[in-house]
Amino acid sequence: MQGLQKKLATEFGIDFSDLTLLETAFTHTSYANEHRLLKISHNERLEFLGDAVLQLIISRYLYQNYPYFPEGEMSKRRSMFVREESLAGFTRACGFDAFLRLGKGEEKSGGRNRDTILGDLFEAFLGALLLDKGVEAVERFLYQVMIPQLEVGNFERVTDYKTYLQELLQVNGEVIIQYQVVSENGPAHDKVFEVEVLVNGQAIGRGQGRSKKQAEQDAAKNAVEVRG
Amino acid sequence: MQGLQKKLATEFGIDFSDLTLLETAFTHTSYANEHRLLKISHNERLEFLGDAVLQLIISRYLYQNYPYFPEGEMSKRRSMFVREESLAGFTRACGFDAFLRLGKGEEKSGGRNRDTILGDLFEAFLGALLLDKGVEAVERFLYQVMIPQLEVGNFERVTDYKTYLQELLQVNGEVIIQYQVVSENGPAHDKVFEVEVLVNGQAIGRGQGRSKKQAEQDAAKNAVEVRG
Repeated sequence: MQGLQKKLATEFGIDFSDLTLLETAFTHTSYANEHRLLKISHNERLEFLGDAVLQLIISRYLYQNYPYFPEGEMSKRRSMFVREESLAGFTRACGFDAFLRLGKGEEKSGGRNRDTILGDLFEAFLGALLLDKGVEAVERFLYQVMIPQLEVGNFERVTDYKTYLQELLQVNGEVIIQYQVVSENGPAHDKVFEVEVLVNGQAIGRGQGRSKKQAEQDAAKNAVEVRG
Repeated sequence: MQGLQKKLATEFGIDFSDLTLLETAFTHTSYANEHRLLKISHNERLEFLGDAVLQLIISRYLYQNYPYFPEGEMSKRRSMFVREESLAGFTRACGFDAFLRLGKGEEKSGGRNRDTILGDLFEAFLGALLLDKGVEAVERFLYQVMIPQLEVGNFERVTDYKTYLQELLQVNGEVIIQYQVVSENGPAHDKVFEVEVLVNGQAIGRGQGRSKKQAEQDAAKNAVEVRG
């Protein structure tokens, strides 16, 4: 655990104090079960705590950075961000997987690279960090290693921007969203449409495309990105 | 909202700064919808945030005060504590319901006393408090109004202490739990049994009852309470 402690200090600026706690965070149930007589604690309880602090920090991040997201959209995003494959990726990126204490059986069957185990490890570490250094330290760590990555992939998963824009705008009840063709250029087989999206009569974005439908999606996308 | 601000200061020692935020927390969607032209914000987004901070603080409380609870038991407790009827009760106990801004229709149909609406209001207030004063302030508030109440009703819902004790003890894999009659006194129609509960051969509690079964439950209850 001293290697890990040093890594935390040099790579993440975390001066982790309680080594026993850190050890617990990095101990899988399979390891604790194999060493039952030593009464070693495993990381399930810390994972419970870490999950909660992660949810809070992601919630606050979404709340503050996406003022137009209704509750449902924040909730959807949050669960997308904290799903186990995503968390397992951050465990690997931080190089935490090497420090995991795993039972022999799990080790043999490839547990050290399993998303459930590595996702849980990430949460357990956050739980331990919360106890050792407080909420702000967990937040700093997540803004170092996780949140910039979420930003990058942020809108990638959205394919239907028209529906998405509608969801965003309906925070305070119904709004009237219209799409208007502004121009139509080129020969019949190679047209380019330009479309404007209006909310309650006011233009909030423009887009282009080879069909009206495409241009509408593009306009909605631009409107979303401006608002985001 | 100034009345509420004063109430928060005198009753809870909270010096709430951002009155607009407080207003949002106390605005139900039905009110915002009725005043759409004024573009009033309602409390759904704050409720999302408040739910997350509530979960975190309850999780930390359970983690620190119930070291023998496995993850599943903490999770069960937490959802019991944060269910809407429970939160609605705290809203009423704090006298927050009087300050809720509700639409006319909702008001007529008794919305001001509806558990869903009042539970959401409690969470929205926590979300606003988080933004205005930080996690520690939310924690202090919950330790004032909510957590002592949870302590009181804590073990009330448990009826089968034998099962419960078993769950508690199996945090680190299987253990052997035995119940042993220690003494048996009185005439046949009025017996009193005394039973001892042993974990891996070691006595951890005693109980009495008019039947062996009753005495076993009592022994388990005593063992739980000692550990709790």
